[in-house]
Amino acid sequence: MKTIASICVVGAGAIGSLFAGHLGTLCRATVLVRRPEHAAEVNARGLRVSGKSDLHATIEAATDPAALGDVDLVIIATKATAVEASARAIAGHFPSALVMTVQNGLGCEEVVARHGDWPIISAVTFMSGVRHSDVHVEYELDTETWMGPWARGRASYADVQRVAALVQRSGLKARAFEDLLPAQWSKLLFNSSVNSIGALTDLPHVRAFAAREALTDLGNLVFAMMEEGKRVAAAVGTTLYQDPWEMNVKAVSHGQTGNDEYAHVFSMLEDVRARRSTEIDWLTGAVVREARRVGVPAPIHETLYRLVKAREQSWQR
Amino acid sequence: MKTIASICVVGAGAIGSLFAGHLGTLCRATVLVRRPEHAAEVNARGLRVSGKSDLHATIEAATDPAALGDVDLVIIATKATAVEASARAIAGHFPSALVMTVQNGLGCEEVVARHGDWPIISAVTFMSGVRHSDVHVEYELDTETWMGPWARGRASYADVQRVAALVQRSGLKARAFEDLLPAQWSKLLFNSSVNSIGALTDLPHVRAFAAREALTDLGNLVFAMMEEGKRVAAAVGTTLYQDPWEMNVKAVSHGQTGNDEYAHVFSMLEDVRARRSTEIDWLTGAVVREARRVGVPAPIHETLYRLVKAREQSWQR
Repeated sequence: MKTIASICVVGAGAIGSLFAGHLGTLCRATVLVRRPEHAAEVNARGLRVSGKSDLHATIEAATDPAALGDVDLVIIATKATAVEASARAIAGHFPSALVMTVQNGLGCEEVVARHGDWPIISAVTFMSGVRHSDVHVEYELDTETWMGPWARGRASYADVQRVAALVQRSGLKARAFEDLLPAQWSKLLFNSSVNSIGALTDLPHVRAFAAREALTDLGNLVFAMMEEGKRVAAAVGTTLYQDPWEMNVKAVSHGQTGNDEYAHVFSMLEDVRARRSTEIDWLTGAVVREARRVGVPAPIHETLYRLVKAREQSWQR
Repeated sequence: MKTIASICVVGAGAIGSLFAGHLGTLCRATVLVRRPEHAAEVNARGLRVSGKSDLHATIEAATDPAALGDVDLVIIATKATAVEASARAIAGHFPSALVMTVQNGLGCEEVVARHGDWPIISAVTFMSGVRHSDVHVEYELDTETWMGPWARGRASYADVQRVAALVQRSGLKARAFEDLLPAQWSKLLFNSSVNSIGALTDLPHVRAFAAREALTDLGNLVFAMMEEGKRVAAAVGTTLYQDPWEMNVKAVSHGQTGNDEYAHVFSMLEDVRARRSTEIDWLTGAVVREARRVGVPAPIHETLYRLVKAREQSWQR
């Protein structure tokens, strides 16, 4: 079995920079980015990681994959909305690579598979970072990245274990799964609810998301939506690794004090505030499509899906 | 039967000013307002109506009902959110008056009845105006106001006919109903859907509200929500005067061209943009309460109700 001696991270946002910076301390690390000045800056100064890690790595950056040569592992770290463009950019390149996707939601692996026959590893990450500049990222939440062989591809569990071991050695947290679907669906049901609700209400992940006393309490909606999602998961034949409602309750507890001041601002809410396309098609939209495929009613997911799509539409006016 | 020779409009916003201005050309007209400078301005300059009407009326204004004496008709023209305060303000006053409510949604008559035993007329209005100043309102949409005896009060159909005749003579459009509930529910189901959806998507009443081709088209949500509302109305035992979906399709047609540029901005969207409390409790919330009372599931109304309440909550942060 081949050692992973070189990697390419596609998209050097917060998550991509965290992977590149950490892995760059262990092996040859490259990043494929969109802006030439971004590539030039990274080539000149490398990547600095502060916060939960404190390191500096030399990185090769380019806007054209041909300039980077072949690598053993490609991590596609762009948002779900950009995976189509990322996969198109690497089509015909990196013939020996495993390709790992780390997007929210469902469906990015298929997009990648349409552009090349790489063995594909599915991953979901819980870590977070704040990108201070093109060459400096702060490692904030040092939580795990979970990975498993994409069920419809040719990556093996051994491939996944090799990647997980490398990621762990680099200072990040990782866990290998033989079947990632239960974990992927848990995170999907969590995000398809809380992200869309946050985007529409302009609320970060505050305690109201778990409040279920009065009729109008928002937790009633979160709960009902997650129950609906669980019925879809059951009909699809997926067990859940974690209960999304428990993930929600835990996330809003903020330690002992329940201080809403530090509540997490969902990425979809950030997108809505910045009037950027959201990942709704891969989150709530993915649940809606799966529900229709298996014939389970999902009125709440359909409602949130259409509301967020319409909100995106409002920016064209 | 007594002639209506004097009126008091409570709340001189756009709708209140349209009533006061028109009726002021026929009879003694007074307005009860909140701001002393508003009362002083109206007392000094009267009310001018431009647009679909062109008139000027002398009006007596006050912030204290005691200053206005008794009248034959009180029109409560504040928003639903302010009816509690309006009814409290007139409690103990206007002993000979009929009281007419013209708010959106359901439930304002009960609030008024808790503060006095006036005969109560229910009304819904479709007219609209733009308030240019405390003494100038533009009459925009010259559509009807519908009125009927409140089912749980002691106003008669004859009372309603007298009020409708007066309103018509003043230059506004009015129609008397023996039973207003079918019309009230039609407008309720229309508004509980389009207003809450507009508030969350930041969209005025554009053609997308009637689009039902693609899975994500917003018209699918409007349609499903109205169908849900119609099931509630049927279970409550109310027939509908108009189909809310047809009202929706007609409203977005904008004549022949379907030009979204002039699409109506819902009052709830205006409230959300201005971070004011909305009328959600009287619209979508009223449907939710009625649905629970008669045991009909209303997941879409519950979803929209909770989302708008949470959006209001976000302004407290």
